[in-house]
Amino acid sequence: MTLPACWTSAIAQPDSHFAELARIRQGVLTKPPGSLGRLEDLAITLSAQQRTETPAVDRIHISVCAGDHGVCSEGISAFPQAVTAQMIANFARGGAAISVLAHQLGASLEVLDLGTVGDVPLGLSGIVDERIAPATGNLAQEPAMSEAQVAAALAAGDRAAERAADSGSQLFIGGDMGIGNTTSAAALACAMLNRCPAQFAGPGTGLDESGVCHKARVIEQALARHGSDRSPLDLLASFGGFEIAALTGALLGAAARGIPILVDGYIVSVAALVGVRQQPALRHWLHFSHRSAEPGHRLVLDALEADPLLDLGMRLGEGSGAATAVPLLRAACALHNAMASFADAGVSDRS
Amino acid sequence: MTLPACWTSAIAQPDSHFAELARIRQGVLTKPPGSLGRLEDLAITLSAQQRTETPAVDRIHISVCAGDHGVCSEGISAFPQAVTAQMIANFARGGAAISVLAHQLGASLEVLDLGTVGDVPLGLSGIVDERIAPATGNLAQEPAMSEAQVAAALAAGDRAAERAADSGSQLFIGGDMGIGNTTSAAALACAMLNRCPAQFAGPGTGLDESGVCHKARVIEQALARHGSDRSPLDLLASFGGFEIAALTGALLGAAARGIPILVDGYIVSVAALVGVRQQPALRHWLHFSHRSAEPGHRLVLDALEADPLLDLGMRLGEGSGAATAVPLLRAACALHNAMASFADAGVSDRS
Repeated sequence: MTLPACWTSAIAQPDSHFAELARIRQGVLTKPPGSLGRLEDLAITLSAQQRTETPAVDRIHISVCAGDHGVCSEGISAFPQAVTAQMIANFARGGAAISVLAHQLGASLEVLDLGTVGDVPLGLSGIVDERIAPATGNLAQEPAMSEAQVAAALAAGDRAAERAADSGSQLFIGGDMGIGNTTSAAALACAMLNRCPAQFAGPGTGLDESGVCHKARVIEQALARHGSDRSPLDLLASFGGFEIAALTGALLGAAARGIPILVDGYIVSVAALVGVRQQPALRHWLHFSHRSAEPGHRLVLDALEADPLLDLGMRLGEGSGAATAVPLLRAACALHNAMASFADAGVSDRS
Repeated sequence: MTLPACWTSAIAQPDSHFAELARIRQGVLTKPPGSLGRLEDLAITLSAQQRTETPAVDRIHISVCAGDHGVCSEGISAFPQAVTAQMIANFARGGAAISVLAHQLGASLEVLDLGTVGDVPLGLSGIVDERIAPATGNLAQEPAMSEAQVAAALAAGDRAAERAADSGSQLFIGGDMGIGNTTSAAALACAMLNRCPAQFAGPGTGLDESGVCHKARVIEQALARHGSDRSPLDLLASFGGFEIAALTGALLGAAARGIPILVDGYIVSVAALVGVRQQPALRHWLHFSHRSAEPGHRLVLDALEADPLLDLGMRLGEGSGAATAVPLLRAACALHNAMASFADAGVSDRS
């Protein structure tokens, strides 16, 4: 089993020299100091991550990672499993939320097909064939993945990050698609944070109250079977989806290549938490886009010490929350790069 | 004294028929129902306001209203009064935050010069001459404006809304500039909401703690002098800035012409509250962009039953918070108009 380099090789920190230059610049722009709030912090952090005095997020790479989950046989989703493959086609044909948002942003969008029970139509462009198996194992009864499958998924994500780097991307966004994946993500989060399933089981795509209770019991069963005191690699094997492991690989791969990352919602945040457990320096490359309506997200964000930019009650996945937040980063960069200084504009500074 | 028609003629409601069509459409798009959160609500509301099945906010009119405040002689601002005129020039030359954001959005930006103590350089384009006087009266000692001045400022704002309508604008944004205007806005809000000045006096452009206490005392003095149980017109005359009255006129004028409005921060929210007190139907045309770091904003938003889209610690004014939130409205429209339905995409709906 070969793991991608980003799994073990140390990830560098952003460049504090450029952060300091950016902080100085923010202090001389024609506005009261601090009055742009978090847009100032974004510009400073992006400057450090991109090692530049003029940060930009014009070129964006979005990789939606998709795969099916064996745990669906426990009846934990409001939608049928066939939807995963159907949505892969919808992503590629431009009809899904992330397709529309990527088009609007001028972002490059690709879909990693990591394996689905349904058939993905042939001949669609924008789909990367990374199929591992039709679905993971049922995590309530058996390991979700073998170690070799985890390694394959991590490597698929790392290749996505490599494509992002090769195309000069200034921002990486990972998205998820996989009917059943909030169950997998909740099990992973429970195991990592040592919390009880009831705090993490949420409605996902639309379970009712009894469905949520059943989902919590399935997660409890999985935790009892696999235990929680495990390495990140073991946790992914026990509970993870193909797409969650691929996302972990993609985030680590993007950070290793010096690309800032805009984290989407619940699923990607759990993938990020796995990545940070393996490589704490990953945290310095993460921006958090939004707080999902899925209840477990709050606890995962707390564990990552993350305060997302948006809180709009979104809970779709696909990278849609991250795509929605991109213009905030673009505004931060434009203001940082193009505003006049007090001296240039002949504006009096504080009395 | 002639008041603009929007002050007294009833403002129509948005069209509930188009809201219903939009709600139906949101239910068939390829996503779990409700999973786009507030972006769904935005699309539905914009459909009703614009009376269309395909809402859009491509054409945006931004009017920054600027004027000076007599109350500056009480020493209630961290910046010198000369900055108002200097910033008008900075807006026109493209160096201010709102200039950069308007350019990025492709929005039309104009600055209404309602009167400043300093000289605005001649020959700059994008400045509308609406000068009423060099500054308002000192609200702690005398009425800020005569009734004729209030009428002139309301009419100037109404003309801005008329220009927005004439150019086919799909969204109106008002911005503010005026050293000392958080004192004027706080006095107005205190009088309308019957609260004490300490809850509304904030740091503005950067007062320290003793400066904030002094500001609260100045507001208290003004409230004692003028009283608070007054008509919206009287309140504007007692406490208002030229730019605040112009913003009230602009918001009422935009709503009267059927243009949705994206409200900026503290100052514009206070102008909106004055407008809603005069014409309650104005409320149905308002979207709220952000929660300002200025502490009084929360209470004004509560009074308007408003939950803004963003909370990024911004407190600059100029319309900068509203401009920052525009892409959320654009995302909502793009998703509403361009996503595939379950039927079109061949995606299975809920089991």
